Amino acid sequence: MKIIKYPAKKDWASLCKRAILNQNNLQETVQTVLNDVKINQNKALTKYAKLFDKVSLTSFEINQQEIEEADKLVSSALKEAIQLAKSNIEIFHNSQKEEEKKVITTKGVTCWRKSVAIEKVGLYIPGGSAPLFSTILMLAIPAKIAGCKEIVLCTPPNKEGKVHPAILYTAALVGVTKIFKVGGAQAIGAMAYGTETIPSVYKILGPGNQYVTKAKELVQQQGIAIDMPAGPSEVLVIADQTSNAAFVASDLLSQAEHGADSQAVLLTTSSEIAQNILIEVNTQLKELSRREIAEKALENSFVIILNSSDEMISFSNEYAPEHLIIASENASTYIDKISNAGSVFLGNYSCESAGDYASGTNHTLPTNGYAKNYSGVSLDSFIKKITFQQVTKQGIATIGKAIELMAEAEGLQAHKNAVTLRLKDIERN
Amino acid sequence: MKIIKYPAKKDWASLCKRAILNQNNLQETVQTVLNDVKINQNKALTKYAKLFDKVSLTSFEINQQEIEEADKLVSSALKEAIQLAKSNIEIFHNSQKEEEKKVITTKGVTCWRKSVAIEKVGLYIPGGSAPLFSTILMLAIPAKIAGCKEIVLCTPPNKEGKVHPAILYTAALVGVTKIFKVGGAQAIGAMAYGTETIPSVYKILGPGNQYVTKAKELVQQQGIAIDMPAGPSEVLVIADQTSNAAFVASDLLSQAEHGADSQAVLLTTSSEIAQNILIEVNTQLKELSRREIAEKALENSFVIILNSSDEMISFSNEYAPEHLIIASENASTYIDKISNAGSVFLGNYSCESAGDYASGTNHTLPTNGYAKNYSGVSLDSFIKKITFQQVTKQGIATIGKAIELMAEAEGLQAHKNAVTLRLKDIERN
Repeated sequence: MKIIKYPAKKDWASLCKRAILNQNNLQETVQTVLNDVKINQNKALTKYAKLFDKVSLTSFEINQQEIEEADKLVSSALKEAIQLAKSNIEIFHNSQKEEEKKVITTKGVTCWRKSVAIEKVGLYIPGGSAPLFSTILMLAIPAKIAGCKEIVLCTPPNKEGKVHPAILYTAALVGVTKIFKVGGAQAIGAMAYGTETIPSVYKILGPGNQYVTKAKELVQQQGIAIDMPAGPSEVLVIADQTSNAAFVASDLLSQAEHGADSQAVLLTTSSEIAQNILIEVNTQLKELSRREIAEKALENSFVIILNSSDEMISFSNEYAPEHLIIASENASTYIDKISNAGSVFLGNYSCESAGDYASGTNHTLPTNGYAKNYSGVSLDSFIKKITFQQVTKQGIATIGKAIELMAEAEGLQAHKNAVTLRLKDIERN
Repeated sequence: MKIIKYPAKKDWASLCKRAILNQNNLQETVQTVLNDVKINQNKALTKYAKLFDKVSLTSFEINQQEIEEADKLVSSALKEAIQLAKSNIEIFHNSQKEEEKKVITTKGVTCWRKSVAIEKVGLYIPGGSAPLFSTILMLAIPAKIAGCKEIVLCTPPNKEGKVHPAILYTAALVGVTKIFKVGGAQAIGAMAYGTETIPSVYKILGPGNQYVTKAKELVQQQGIAIDMPAGPSEVLVIADQTSNAAFVASDLLSQAEHGADSQAVLLTTSSEIAQNILIEVNTQLKELSRREIAEKALENSFVIILNSSDEMISFSNEYAPEHLIIASENASTYIDKISNAGSVFLGNYSCESAGDYASGTNHTLPTNGYAKNYSGVSLDSFIKKITFQQVTKQGIATIGKAIELMAEAEGLQAHKNAVTLRLKDIERN
């Protein structure tokens, strides 16, 4: 990790710039896959399973037998851990339910909002080296609480045509309605357009490689909602003299092991604190199984020495980190100064992995500076808020004249007329 | 309006299909404008003002003098009407504030969400025949309540280089921070990338023509959030024997006068009711100033006779209308059956124009069936919800083991290590 001392404020913007992802050349490839799935449906899925996943599949849907087999392969200890995480995630996302508040805006005019589930949602869970069953918890639990009727999950099969048992166990546990062994851009196409066996959905959520990300971006332009734009994962840690150097190092490395394109940023006001943490990073790094990945990520990562805690939080707000760890006994003094962050971890015992798995907060968060304009996934991601208004005779009498004047000024005579007719009717009766 | 009697359920999907907008040929044009603005900034804006708005501008920002002049040109009656609407919209959007709820998900683990304003937002208000000052109320009021620091408004100038006084009056009234005489795709580019005088923003909201819409879609792919995908406006009215035929006709025509591509759909269980309403439509149509537009819209519009109120609400849910008017004395019996709609108008006196202007609800709503997966604009559109977690020693002792197991099963050793170090530290002390 490079150390940058007291950068001038004018240089902050370039420090906050993430590595640029050049995905332009992907567009054509991904569009071809999407069009193929739209037209040829399951036939296209079979073709891409052979081509990309190196497997011949006769059916894509996971059946009850496969679920039962998976159940036997997951240890009771891991099952209990998943259930504990599930419970905390449920408690927190249940608390996000909004009570219906009827508001009388003026005499005879009552307005309110009603939260209604998005009927059909699709979750994408990547395959590859790590079976991300924790992401199933983060997406399917709020979907279930919201009341989504159809919760479809797509995940790529391995070369034996199988899906990791922890994925199947978790999906069944949280009530995913249909699981399909389909991965990549073709899975996004299948959930966007539907095939003979895979239902089309209204919103697609979940992480993925650059093909999946591009596919989500393209179907979004065709009216399918997506969770948020994607980017590499990142953490920003604010450390001070009350931090524990070993803890901070472990948090920076948690981030670094995610992927070679991950970024870890450390802010502190003291070179000595920085040095102690970097020594710990080097010690802990040696022991890691994903050491090579973490080392690459640390090459894009840096430590910045700043003048004060106010400067640290200002920089953090400009960076807008996905994860913000305030590794300080005085963490609570920062809360009201945070304007841009995905999820915040307060104090020395709130490690990022707590939020990644089991504290109850969601781990699907805005990256790449998008914490400036996007929230992470929550119950809100699975609902629409429909507005209602009930205007009585008294109500239209109260606001009618104003509507007539405004509609007329906007040149919308029929809008005015809808009110005039009602006002006349009230006068007559 | 065409009458369709008892369509088979399999034909509903095609009835729910909106006219397809072919915008492919726009992409290149709009991308060129956006690139030009990104590189040449104000110089490009001057060029496009000449080219598209037929006006030579030396400066784009509306100054205090222009605001004061506009103030003199708006009648007191219209000002009062705008203020009444403002008050109701404020009351309703203020009620959307969410109280911070700290939740203890398990011993020693506290999680909560904090609503924080998106710092800088951009509003686009179209010019043209109708000065849409009501849309300024709908966008700037929640932005102000949310606490957005920079609220930028772009709207095209007329050939004299001026902006309609009602637009300037309203923008000043609700606290827009900067108003610019810039329209079209170039305005979207200016707010996305910033120029020498126009600040870049994190989210762009507001209606516009196909160039504006395409520009919003393109900058969204570059990380700028937008309100929602766009489409022509639409209404679906459910009428029964308790409806007032003249009222329903006036509501259908309110929709039809919006634009030639608007759609009005009437559902009822009786041919007689349908006939009475259509007679009223024809009578009222003759008097309209925007008659030609309304007539064209009615060509794309239709009446459907169905068997029951249950069938009507099922069809409506499949159509997912932007505006749903339940023109019935029994409107409240429908509420719990509504699954897809932007905004709902209950009863014979809740006309769409009430919601368009002054009931308090927002009129920026999902069209084109997007009510299945998007909400209309609300206070939520101007905030991010940042999650916080505070895990104490007791907390990490409670959930630590589960995190270790899950991280290990996902092959993320550093994630596990972050917990192990903390657990060991607690054991030691």
